Amino acid sequence: MIVADGRDWNVIGVHHIAFAHGDDPTCEEALAALLRCEPSVETAPGFVERMYPVGDAYVQTLEPTGEGVVASFIDKRGPALHHLAFSVDSIDAAVADLRAAGTRLIDERPRAGGVATRIAFIHPSVFGGLLVELVETVPSTVEA
Amino acid sequence: MIVADGRDWNVIGVHHIAFAHGDDPTCEEALAALLRCEPSVETAPGFVERMYPVGDAYVQTLEPTGEGVVASFIDKRGPALHHLAFSVDSIDAAVADLRAAGTRLIDERPRAGGVATRIAFIHPSVFGGLLVELVETVPSTVEA
Repeated sequence: MIVADGRDWNVIGVHHIAFAHGDDPTCEEALAALLRCEPSVETAPGFVERMYPVGDAYVQTLEPTGEGVVASFIDKRGPALHHLAFSVDSIDAAVADLRAAGTRLIDERPRAGGVATRIAFIHPSVFGGLLVELVETVPSTVEA
Repeated sequence: MIVADGRDWNVIGVHHIAFAHGDDPTCEEALAALLRCEPSVETAPGFVERMYPVGDAYVQTLEPTGEGVVASFIDKRGPALHHLAFSVDSIDAAVADLRAAGTRLIDERPRAGGVATRIAFIHPSVFGGLLVELVETVPSTVEA
């Protein structure tokens, strides 16, 4: 369902790994100490996400602020790794190619993500239970 | 419990993200197609691990071959992300420092890992439920 050859987009690395947890600050404090950094923080409907840079990637933590996908995940699983996000060189080409191949997507079109990105999630059934996100970083606008 | 300042080791990036699954080949086939690579394969007591290179990191899949930690994890959770491994510049300094700080470790001493590494796991309680592995890549022996 995923075309390996003859396509015009590629995965270029790991963008982030997401861990969902409740209101226990243990994970946030330990990540800040281990990675020696403070996260950037963004809010979304139903959760807050924090991004800890590490090498060329991020650890993302997801904390629910109300009902939604993150709260539902934690209710079912407890604190746990939630998804894996790969950087791609073209999210438009990736989504078009996956749709053409009949791959089941959660996002049929790329949408805005955090930290200046465009993203699309692939349905976890495609990877046997692994939730995969594709991410393209939007180039910063250069001031003239 | 993790010292952030004044220590002589650092996390330098993500080494791998591990996904545990049963004998369903869906994940392996989809990862090989998405990442356009074949994994390296290593066996360990009770499981086989496959490493898919992506950028500077790997996706690791864990498939049980008998009783053990991987089979127990899947019995409890089903197919799911299992742990997150960070590269460190000195596993010996990291483990010594964590022990001195009273951080709860699964491996009180570094031990051999796959793909020419030395590793130590930190107890998931330290990160509020996230299982973290530290990895130092062992330099290849240079032929004279």
